[in-house]
Amino acid sequence: MLTREALLNRDAADPLRSFRDRFDLPDGMVYLDGNSLGALPKDTAARLADVVAREWGQDLITSWNKNGWYELPLTLGNKLGRLIGAAEGQVAIADSTSINLFKVLAAAIALRPGRKVIISDSGNFPTDLYMAQGLTTFLGGVDLLVVDETEVAQSLNENVAAVFLTEVNYRSGRKHDMAALTQKIHEVGALAIWDLAHSAGAFPVHLDAAGADFAVGCGYKYLNGGPGAPAFLYIAKRHQHQAMPILSGWMGHAAPFLFDLDYRPADGMRRALAGTPAILSMRALEVGIDLMLEADLSALAAKSTALTEVFMRLVEQECPGVFGNVTPADPARRGSQVCLTHAQGYAIVQALIARKVIPDFRAPDILRFGFAPLYVGFADLWDAVAHLKAIMDSGEWKESRFAARGSVT
Amino acid sequence: MLTREALLNRDAADPLRSFRDRFDLPDGMVYLDGNSLGALPKDTAARLADVVAREWGQDLITSWNKNGWYELPLTLGNKLGRLIGAAEGQVAIADSTSINLFKVLAAAIALRPGRKVIISDSGNFPTDLYMAQGLTTFLGGVDLLVVDETEVAQSLNENVAAVFLTEVNYRSGRKHDMAALTQKIHEVGALAIWDLAHSAGAFPVHLDAAGADFAVGCGYKYLNGGPGAPAFLYIAKRHQHQAMPILSGWMGHAAPFLFDLDYRPADGMRRALAGTPAILSMRALEVGIDLMLEADLSALAAKSTALTEVFMRLVEQECPGVFGNVTPADPARRGSQVCLTHAQGYAIVQALIARKVIPDFRAPDILRFGFAPLYVGFADLWDAVAHLKAIMDSGEWKESRFAARGSVT
Repeated sequence: MLTREALLNRDAADPLRSFRDRFDLPDGMVYLDGNSLGALPKDTAARLADVVAREWGQDLITSWNKNGWYELPLTLGNKLGRLIGAAEGQVAIADSTSINLFKVLAAAIALRPGRKVIISDSGNFPTDLYMAQGLTTFLGGVDLLVVDETEVAQSLNENVAAVFLTEVNYRSGRKHDMAALTQKIHEVGALAIWDLAHSAGAFPVHLDAAGADFAVGCGYKYLNGGPGAPAFLYIAKRHQHQAMPILSGWMGHAAPFLFDLDYRPADGMRRALAGTPAILSMRALEVGIDLMLEADLSALAAKSTALTEVFMRLVEQECPGVFGNVTPADPARRGSQVCLTHAQGYAIVQALIARKVIPDFRAPDILRFGFAPLYVGFADLWDAVAHLKAIMDSGEWKESRFAARGSVT
Repeated sequence: MLTREALLNRDAADPLRSFRDRFDLPDGMVYLDGNSLGALPKDTAARLADVVAREWGQDLITSWNKNGWYELPLTLGNKLGRLIGAAEGQVAIADSTSINLFKVLAAAIALRPGRKVIISDSGNFPTDLYMAQGLTTFLGGVDLLVVDETEVAQSLNENVAAVFLTEVNYRSGRKHDMAALTQKIHEVGALAIWDLAHSAGAFPVHLDAAGADFAVGCGYKYLNGGPGAPAFLYIAKRHQHQAMPILSGWMGHAAPFLFDLDYRPADGMRRALAGTPAILSMRALEVGIDLMLEADLSALAAKSTALTEVFMRLVEQECPGVFGNVTPADPARRGSQVCLTHAQGYAIVQALIARKVIPDFRAPDILRFGFAPLYVGFADLWDAVAHLKAIMDSGEWKESRFAARGSVT
């Protein structure tokens, strides 16, 4: 039997416990939606105030050199690289995840001329599929094939240019075996593109070691970069000088301030940049990444595993037989989230939110609980499940105020 | 003869004079580079602090509904539309100018199947040309033709799908006749795409009245949205339901939170969105746009014309014969900037900067002075030219400290 006291003891022994005080969270809230929007680091407000008043207001255009704005997409990319197993010079911060996926998909297709198919799975986050649909429709000659997530390996053949997958399924928490799948993808000569939206900052990723060709991911979930934070992309060094960018903007030019009429790609990751970087949002993301870099990454991985495991045990202990659970039991096969299922999932999530326990709902029936290892504690799990039990025992979720469907989240 | 006293009197009579106090500018600086990075509105710091602490920190994911984040790209787009002559529902704030140009160029090409050429001019800002090069290289079948800016009209024929031009030349200040050129472009059945980077916020633009098909522009120059502020795009209502997006991300989906596997474009401008919007940067831009909307747009236009004219007269009066001037004398044919030329332009600009007069330099020989009507005054022009005269009379620009070329600005 798990008890609240035992979980408080785990919090006391947690090597990451001090990070909790580095975030501003609303009083009394158990926030389990950091996989939708990460919490606010306490340092962000002061950092942004300084960027606005000093870097923009006082230093103005000299900030492009003086305050490192011009290099920021790459210097910050290098910092992030340490969290995702990428040696220097392979990560840039830029644009949105959707846009970055478009860039790397186009590059992968160009690197495998004559191959007619790109593959993804139906567990991928829809925007990745949508971007691929837009790209293939306009390009012509290459088709998108979407397979079940268990059938990726068997769908591979030498007509496949690239496979793009999100490592952790946003709905179920299922985690692909990145290294094994990448190897299989390479065996047919295809390229492997990984979306790390639900990975980066939740647990260590090992892109170089896995042999990944390309990766993308977002800054506003586990990296705590703020709403709509700039995203990132990774291009393995071996591909950088072969891949001509489709979004060939001036920030990726070899000499943007010569204002040549012809595009000439910069060396290395700079060519992955397109337009002028969103400095304010990027500085906010930097705070989140800097904070994450203070953490021991193996402690992060261990805590992610422990949080998800304890939560699943608690649900079984306190609400036996009430919920389905689509999250893999094997910790190596799941991300930092647990996804329960219930036909009345939407109303139950609303009832939890009314009690200041914040998961989110994913149609048709998923109650999604995300566990950001830096600020979620073990006793939080007890409290969340205690509320869940109270809601189910009382039938409070049946109240009409929980029935209406919101338009966005 | 213009005198400083006369110019102080013009400032006193300027209906826009009170806006100057709404900006934070460094003490003693004459800032004439608002066409590279606009100045900091005083309201921005408090607005961003509130967005961070309350919208993000306290309201977290509920902000997508509660604080209007989900609709922000379109509500803010509608506000901006009032500055550029676009009726509601035709402007979105999103991504960068480069990315937005890519979107509208791809849409225009798709709307004119069978036509094999897109045209721009060599006075366009290079990133627009670069993006078109990337697009046409990947698409195939459509070529980019870059002509002299005086030869656009005579280059038109029925093989042309689209013409994309920046209204105000970033280097010379020359302003195209948007209405006349759009009409000529339409006469051959082509589509007209206008880049308003140096227009929006400098003087009123009349997109609907000119019959423009598409437009793009940036938020960080005359709109004072901050470094790398999100950009905008305009799609005339008549094209919105025919144009399938090439960058078809989830924020442009008809029902993004149903997480369908297939892309289905939203009605109207929402389909012009791709990834998750950069909320922090967008809120900063909102401050700049709100401030601009307080101004009388005809006063803005009149002051833009007056500032550029007075500056040119002052240079001639104080430094006769010293500089070339590539800016059109006809106020209807120039933007809110004056571009002098001098073989030693780079060193002279550095010497001005050392005296806290801030223009910028554009290779090979252009001293570029931008005049943001909201915060530049007439006496500033006197002071800037007085410094310029002192630098030229003394030869101080020859000092070795002004000779080294910076890497960025």
